[in-house]
Amino acid sequence: MKINPLRLQQHFEAMSLIGKIGDTGTCRPAHSSLEKEAFLLAASWMQAAGMTTRIDDFGNLIGRLEGSQPHLPVLMMGSHLDSQPYGGRFDGVAGVLCAIEVVTTLTENNIVPTRPIEVISFADEEGWRFNKGLFGSRGILGKLEAGELQRTDKDGISREQALLDFGCNISNFKASEYANGSIFCFLELHIEQGPVLDIANKPIGVVSGISGPLWQTLTLKGMAGHAGSVPMAIRNDALVGAAEVIIALNEIATQIPGAPTVGTVGTLQVFPASRNIIPEEVTLTLDLRDIDLERRNKYENQLLQAINRIAEKHGLTYTLTEDTNSEPRYCATWIKEIIHEQCQLLQLDAPELMSGPFHDSLPLSYVCDYGMIFIRSKDGISHNPLEYSSYEDLAIGCNVLLGTVNTILNKQ
Amino acid sequence: MKINPLRLQQHFEAMSLIGKIGDTGTCRPAHSSLEKEAFLLAASWMQAAGMTTRIDDFGNLIGRLEGSQPHLPVLMMGSHLDSQPYGGRFDGVAGVLCAIEVVTTLTENNIVPTRPIEVISFADEEGWRFNKGLFGSRGILGKLEAGELQRTDKDGISREQALLDFGCNISNFKASEYANGSIFCFLELHIEQGPVLDIANKPIGVVSGISGPLWQTLTLKGMAGHAGSVPMAIRNDALVGAAEVIIALNEIATQIPGAPTVGTVGTLQVFPASRNIIPEEVTLTLDLRDIDLERRNKYENQLLQAINRIAEKHGLTYTLTEDTNSEPRYCATWIKEIIHEQCQLLQLDAPELMSGPFHDSLPLSYVCDYGMIFIRSKDGISHNPLEYSSYEDLAIGCNVLLGTVNTILNKQ
Repeated sequence: MKINPLRLQQHFEAMSLIGKIGDTGTCRPAHSSLEKEAFLLAASWMQAAGMTTRIDDFGNLIGRLEGSQPHLPVLMMGSHLDSQPYGGRFDGVAGVLCAIEVVTTLTENNIVPTRPIEVISFADEEGWRFNKGLFGSRGILGKLEAGELQRTDKDGISREQALLDFGCNISNFKASEYANGSIFCFLELHIEQGPVLDIANKPIGVVSGISGPLWQTLTLKGMAGHAGSVPMAIRNDALVGAAEVIIALNEIATQIPGAPTVGTVGTLQVFPASRNIIPEEVTLTLDLRDIDLERRNKYENQLLQAINRIAEKHGLTYTLTEDTNSEPRYCATWIKEIIHEQCQLLQLDAPELMSGPFHDSLPLSYVCDYGMIFIRSKDGISHNPLEYSSYEDLAIGCNVLLGTVNTILNKQ
Repeated sequence: MKINPLRLQQHFEAMSLIGKIGDTGTCRPAHSSLEKEAFLLAASWMQAAGMTTRIDDFGNLIGRLEGSQPHLPVLMMGSHLDSQPYGGRFDGVAGVLCAIEVVTTLTENNIVPTRPIEVISFADEEGWRFNKGLFGSRGILGKLEAGELQRTDKDGISREQALLDFGCNISNFKASEYANGSIFCFLELHIEQGPVLDIANKPIGVVSGISGPLWQTLTLKGMAGHAGSVPMAIRNDALVGAAEVIIALNEIATQIPGAPTVGTVGTLQVFPASRNIIPEEVTLTLDLRDIDLERRNKYENQLLQAINRIAEKHGLTYTLTEDTNSEPRYCATWIKEIIHEQCQLLQLDAPELMSGPFHDSLPLSYVCDYGMIFIRSKDGISHNPLEYSSYEDLAIGCNVLLGTVNTILNKQ
């Protein structure tokens, strides 16, 4: 049993026309009429595969293939059809279209699953419109936070208004939530959005887990002074201190060659930012990720020690705030093993790798076992019209997903 | 023969009322009615000291004490009465008021110099109004550049209009220029604007020269990528490279402990500046100063080698542009010796130190010998209302200037 690669490609090509920008780009904002259009197209394919479809009150599209035992917890698959504002054709879309293709193949082969299968396109995974993402996947788990509906987009439209415009009934959220234990497992196929598979020349990767980022903001404060008149020996240069912190984080994250630890300073602001004034204050963000939480905690401590040492050396004071502290969420070993088996059956040497970015799998990981399949991203580029995964790779990944679903259905 | 410290203090106190901001601040823009008011007050003191006064067509205030041999090149002293927008009471003012006090003391003591003495308050030393300074001191030497009069301030007023409003005749610049050889020497007393004397607990310093800054702009370009998904080993992180350049400059400038070399990165911008995106491009400014040009050139070369090494290490490309390259300008040894002698007569242990900041002495240094006396600045603070030099220190410095002028008049 194999998926139909031509049909899969045609679905990608048809979907990429909705919200198309330039030759290869996509802009499909969350809860927009473009997302609705994408939902209706995907729903038509779901229905052709024998699924019933609905849009819930969080704005998620859900297709359901009934099982012979409808009361059993569902096997859920999916991702999202909303895109970055200047995004590509594959991020999110791959997980939805491959899941639809898997169900289509199952029903073409007259397979009636014991447990129900649901394919879901989660609302607002990307999060840029209201500056908070994973909306639909948190929604169905009752994990929305106070005030979320009052967040507004750049045009002043609130999430509440956008949901109303989308046709959602926000007073009916409870009915769209999934009861504890009602989801058996969650499978997400996604493009890697990084360069590991491309460099290793492997089409498919098995995800070990989503590493939780530790996000901190560091402000170092020294003393301004004329760049021409304050001798080096008595300076308290906040930017020299910041430079040492950047290098310290880099050294901490690379101390075990080949480990999946990553450390990044992505933003840095200097005050007063005059070329002949010694920097008085520097604010920078620290991003530390590891699939191994114990190691990440150890590294966080090393970083703190480095900051203390650097601040003392340069006579700086500092404040360090924690903005986000997510724990790593591991994929279920049994699902990883099935994915590996399916890769072997297809003669694929599929490396195991961590996911740095978040996915809808992250909130799902708190209520059920989950597994993820990564598809090679050309040059590791994503969140950009240049994002590219070949239809050959997507078809291979889709077959791995098909085999994985079939194995789970037969085993459990 | 000594100056009158009470009169000097009273002049400072009276001058500080013009353009006063807050308790101790000053805002006297170049070519403004406030500067004109300051000129008229200073001119009244010049006239009381027996000088004739005029405002030239560059907007400089000039007081002249005629010599017994009027054709001899003039002994010129001065500084400026314009201030920073959020400035202090002493920057520039000290050099003008002490010079007036010196001439007042000479005439009180019935001294008629052989060569004429001129006290000058140069127009627009600070340069912030039209983003280009040392206007008056460059003007009298015929060193203005094309388009200078068309520069506009934040209200859209051109330099030309400001000069016209000030009463200057811009078609008559030539008549305000000083012929080659007509200035015998230039003496400038100035607050240090740095912390060296305050830390050494010395009221007076003898300036060795004005160190020329080398100003460069460096742009490092790497490759953006998701902070969670690009492994450390294959990153081209422009900010990690920039951090190593900052540290390299710091190490280069401090390799000889106690040397007057200074190196500063005052500004740094990151692109795209998102906390979870690896920095693709970083632009930073480099400021390297030394009174020893040979050493500065050697260090410039070391810095270039470091940039090449860092760029190669991190797979970065870079562009390096030179924005300013001023050579150091040394004070005349014979004037320094006289200043040192005068300090010794007053039992002062006056260290010799470099001036990092520019002064009106800089353009003058190209047409005549010059000397500078520095007055201790509390905590090294300047260009700020907190700028402070004590009247005691200013009186001591003024006596050193008096002795220096008297010695020069007697010797030459």
